[in-house]
Amino acid sequence: MYTLYYSPGSASMAVHAALIEAGAPYSLEMLDFERGEQRSKAYLRINPQGTVPTLIIDGAAYVESAALMLALAERHPESELGPRAGSPLRPAWQQWMVYLSNNLGATFRYWFYPGDLGADEHPPHVRKALQDKIESVWSRLDGELAANGPYLLGEHFSAADLLLTMYMRWSRNMPRPATSWPALDRLALLVRQRESWKRMVEIEGLTDWTLMA
Amino acid sequence: MYTLYYSPGSASMAVHAALIEAGAPYSLEMLDFERGEQRSKAYLRINPQGTVPTLIIDGAAYVESAALMLALAERHPESELGPRAGSPLRPAWQQWMVYLSNNLGATFRYWFYPGDLGADEHPPHVRKALQDKIESVWSRLDGELAANGPYLLGEHFSAADLLLTMYMRWSRNMPRPATSWPALDRLALLVRQRESWKRMVEIEGLTDWTLMA
Repeated sequence: MYTLYYSPGSASMAVHAALIEAGAPYSLEMLDFERGEQRSKAYLRINPQGTVPTLIIDGAAYVESAALMLALAERHPESELGPRAGSPLRPAWQQWMVYLSNNLGATFRYWFYPGDLGADEHPPHVRKALQDKIESVWSRLDGELAANGPYLLGEHFSAADLLLTMYMRWSRNMPRPATSWPALDRLALLVRQRESWKRMVEIEGLTDWTLMA
Repeated sequence: MYTLYYSPGSASMAVHAALIEAGAPYSLEMLDFERGEQRSKAYLRINPQGTVPTLIIDGAAYVESAALMLALAERHPESELGPRAGSPLRPAWQQWMVYLSNNLGATFRYWFYPGDLGADEHPPHVRKALQDKIESVWSRLDGELAANGPYLLGEHFSAADLLLTMYMRWSRNMPRPATSWPALDRLALLVRQRESWKRMVEIEGLTDWTLMA
């Protein structure tokens, strides 16, 4: 039994879909960011940083989406979340989980929160640098997927594809959305057709970036 | 048999120490950054991003320090690099590996490379924001370690402590080095006294931030 503290469309999306993939019982606690619930005393006792997601595993609270997905994959080896320990695909899976988190997660945070760089809004050269960084990741991944796709682990879907699709969605209003890259677009389409992703979108009430859009 | 492509004092340090902790045979390939060897054709064939570390595992090249350490820990379960799958400490270990990489790794990159934010050098408000971010991580970790240390997993040393000590070292010339926080200072002292860290420092020829300094 897991409990996921989430906010619709935020970094908790990928963990939410992973919980559904795992097939384990879980409960959801939604935080209304517009009402500042992530800074409520009750939530800060659970997660002093006031971020989402927080996942309760065996009664203790853990953070960092990629880490939560590593843990879920390992606790549910019968799922498709990740190759088992000892599999030749395992180092690549670990690499992509950390790579996506480290390169896209951290950069998107600066993209969306200019305050984290001490500004009310980004000056054009900073905006351009962050956009260039994100686009360089799309280009690199698109090259990988075009050569060895359709998933990050070739023929094998994994949690890394959920994480990537979440970050791709975040780029939907950028000057050049990730779906402009053909192999990335194909991966996101495959992920968005999965039952786990569709249920997560329905539960979180996300109305944009649906399959129809 | 592993091969580590490294540059002294860079992000490869922690992986280098982890290889020694693992007790596995490995060979080293040093890249001279001042001579631009990380951008040589030969190296870009191995790692198209031209970053270090790259670790060759079973003949294939992988990147991302935290991911390489996750892989090494799992392949050498007899080492102290990480708790085994199924251990109650496992989710916390996965959390810290990703947290450090995502919060410190990514922020230090911007701290050291203003060009990644489109500037020759950081304007004061950006410098201050990045410094604040890094210091907020030290404060958070120091609180954790003071309450539940001396290591990130309490009484148990793990690869997360190697990663943290590496990032701490990177702060040594910042206005407020990580060692100003007492519980962090204690952790780094414990790690720097380990045989693996001492051998890594000797092999990489690092002369600063030694135990004597």
